[in-house]
Amino acid sequence: MERRVYNFGAGPATLPLPVLKEAQRELLNFRASGMSVLELSHRSSWFSEIIETAQANLRTLLNVPEHYHILFLQGGASLQFSMLALNLLHSSSPPADYVVTGTWGNKALAEAQRQGQVNVAWDGKAEGYTRVPEQQELSLNADATYVHFTSNETIQGVQFQHAPLVGGVPLVCDLSSDFLSRPLEVERYALLYGGAQKNVGGAGVTIVIVRDDVLATMPEDTPSMLNYRLLAEKNSLYNTPPTFAIYVVMLVTGWLLEEVGGLERMDELNRQKAQVLYEAIDHSQGFYRGHAQGDSRSSMNVTWRLRDTALEAAFVQQAQARDLVQLKGHRSVGGIRASIYNAMPSEGVQALRDFMDEFAKQNG
Amino acid sequence: MERRVYNFGAGPATLPLPVLKEAQRELLNFRASGMSVLELSHRSSWFSEIIETAQANLRTLLNVPEHYHILFLQGGASLQFSMLALNLLHSSSPPADYVVTGTWGNKALAEAQRQGQVNVAWDGKAEGYTRVPEQQELSLNADATYVHFTSNETIQGVQFQHAPLVGGVPLVCDLSSDFLSRPLEVERYALLYGGAQKNVGGAGVTIVIVRDDVLATMPEDTPSMLNYRLLAEKNSLYNTPPTFAIYVVMLVTGWLLEEVGGLERMDELNRQKAQVLYEAIDHSQGFYRGHAQGDSRSSMNVTWRLRDTALEAAFVQQAQARDLVQLKGHRSVGGIRASIYNAMPSEGVQALRDFMDEFAKQNG
Repeated sequence: MERRVYNFGAGPATLPLPVLKEAQRELLNFRASGMSVLELSHRSSWFSEIIETAQANLRTLLNVPEHYHILFLQGGASLQFSMLALNLLHSSSPPADYVVTGTWGNKALAEAQRQGQVNVAWDGKAEGYTRVPEQQELSLNADATYVHFTSNETIQGVQFQHAPLVGGVPLVCDLSSDFLSRPLEVERYALLYGGAQKNVGGAGVTIVIVRDDVLATMPEDTPSMLNYRLLAEKNSLYNTPPTFAIYVVMLVTGWLLEEVGGLERMDELNRQKAQVLYEAIDHSQGFYRGHAQGDSRSSMNVTWRLRDTALEAAFVQQAQARDLVQLKGHRSVGGIRASIYNAMPSEGVQALRDFMDEFAKQNG
Repeated sequence: MERRVYNFGAGPATLPLPVLKEAQRELLNFRASGMSVLELSHRSSWFSEIIETAQANLRTLLNVPEHYHILFLQGGASLQFSMLALNLLHSSSPPADYVVTGTWGNKALAEAQRQGQVNVAWDGKAEGYTRVPEQQELSLNADATYVHFTSNETIQGVQFQHAPLVGGVPLVCDLSSDFLSRPLEVERYALLYGGAQKNVGGAGVTIVIVRDDVLATMPEDTPSMLNYRLLAEKNSLYNTPPTFAIYVVMLVTGWLLEEVGGLERMDELNRQKAQVLYEAIDHSQGFYRGHAQGDSRSSMNVTWRLRDTALEAAFVQQAQARDLVQLKGHRSVGGIRASIYNAMPSEGVQALRDFMDEFAKQNG
C-alpha cells in the first residue's frame, strides 16, 4: 500500500483514490488500445469516447439542459475572466455588474475593466471579505450586460448558498472552487466556468457551460481561441484540447455518478465534513477564530486564525508531522485553511478535528 | 508486458516508454510525498522542483542563453498565433512578414491579420505546399516588426533545414512539430513556441522561449493571461499552470538528456529513421509518391500518396492490423502520413518499411 497523506491544499487538490488508481492502471495501455491516454489522438474514436463521456457525465450530474454547451478550455478561470468579458461586454454595452466577495472576484473585475464598463454591485472589502451580501444590499442595474459573482471564494472561505436574483439579466458565475460540490440550477445562468483542479480533476482544463443564445457573433479581431461561439461549434476540438486533463474529468465525474451517487449525496457529505471543522472552531472557546460569518461559511475551504497567531506556524508544522498537509492559509491572508473538496474523505476531516482539539488543549 | 502498438499519429503522439513507466510508477505517490503529481500544489516545493527541472533541462538541451525566459503556457500554438501578435504587433507597427509553407503557417497568418498589418513574404500554396522557399525567394522587409515561419509543417511534412536569414528583424518561429528533434540556435530568435504534444510531452502545455528585450510593456486592455511580460515575471505561475503536463515535459526532457544523450544524437537518430521511409518511397518505382521535395522533406512527418489512391484506405487498414496505427493523412490533404517523432523507435520505422515493401509487392 502506497503512503497517502490527507492533503488539505486548495488546488491542485486531493483526488479520489479510485480515480488515481484507474488512471495509473490505464496509463500504459488505454482500454487495450496499445497506447497511453497521453498518446491518443484527439481525433481518434478512443478520445471521442472520453470527451463525450465527460460531457455526458457533467450533463447528468448537473442536469444541464440541451440548449447549453459544455466546453473544455485552457488557461484556468484567469483566462475566463478576460474571455467572458471579451465575448459578452463590448465597448457599446451597458456596464456589467460585479459582486465581489474576495480575491477571485476582484481579479475577475480587474480583467473585465480592461474590456468594458463595469459596476461594482457589492464589495465586501471593508468587512475583510467575511461574508456574501444579502440580496437587498446589491446595487444591480436592470439593464446590466450581465451580473458576475464568485460562488465560493477559495482564499477567504466565503460561499454563496443561493445565487443572487437578477431578473432577466444574464447571470455569470465563477464556480472554480465549488463546482460539482452540490446541485446547481443551471437554467438560472447564462455562463458558468471553473478550473478543474479543485473538485473536478487536475490542473489544465477549464470547464465552461454556456447557454446557446449567449454565443454571439464576435468582432473580426477576436482571437479564435477566445471565441466561445467557434469553440462551441467545434465541440472544444478547434485545436488539440488538453486530452489527459479531460480524461481525468471523465474519471472524476464517473466516480461522482457511480460511487458517490450524485450531487445531492455529495452535498450532504460535504456539509457533514464542514460541520465537523466549524464545530471544532466554535467549541474551542476562542482558541480558533473562524474567518467567515454564519451562512457565508464555505463547505469547501474552511478558514480560521488562532487567537495567538504566533502559534499558527507550529499548528501547520505539527499537523504536517501527522500527515495532515497543506493547511497553511493563502499567503495573502495568513492563518489556516483546510480545503475539504469532494475527494477529502471524512476520515481526513476527523483526523484534523482530533488534532485541532489536542493542539488547543496543549496550547490553550 | 502490456500490449504496445507503433503509433504514427501526428499528435498527441507516441511518448518514450520509460517516461510512461515513470509517470505510472509515480502516479499515486510522487517521490514519497504521499500525493499524486496531479494533487501537488503549484506553490509547493515538490512542484517548484518539477518546473525548475523542466526549465533547466530545456536550457541545457537547447543551450538557451540567460537572457531568454522559458514559459509554460496553455492554449496550444493556436493561442500563440494570437498572443504573439497581440504582444509584438501593435496597430502602429510596421507589417510583420509571414512565410507560409503549409496549413499551420496559414493559421498563424490569419490570427495575426486580426491584430495588425502583415505581409506574406512567401506562400507555397500554388505548388501545393511541397517545399520551403529559398532565401532569395523571400519578400522580406528590413523594417518588418518580425518575421514568422513554421519550422515544420505537420500536415504537409515540409520542414526548414535552416531558419531564414532576416538581418536584424526579430525572428519568430512555430516549432510545435519539430521542437527538441534537433539542435537549435536559440540566439537567432526573438520568440520560439510550440505545443508539447509531439516531441515534448502530452497535450495541454505550450512552451514559449522569449528573449527578454521582446517583453514589451503591454497596453492596459491586454488580458493578463495573454501578456508575456507578466507571465515571465511570474515564472509561469501567474495562475495555476498545467502541472501534470509540465511534469511530463520534465520526464521527456530528462529522457532526452540522460537516455538519448542530447539533441545532436536525437537528430542523428531522427534522420536515420526518416531516411528508411524516404528510401522505401523512392525505391517503390512510383508505387509510393512522396509529397515534399528534396531538402524540404520533414524528418518528423513523412507524407506520401499511393499511385493508386484508391488503395490508400486498404494500406491504412492493413497496417493497423499489424499494430502500425494512425497512418492516415490529415483529412485536409489525404494520403498517408507517418509521424516519426523522437519517441518512435527505429524498430517501428523498420516494421513500417517492411510493410510498405510487402504492400507494394502485393498490389503493385
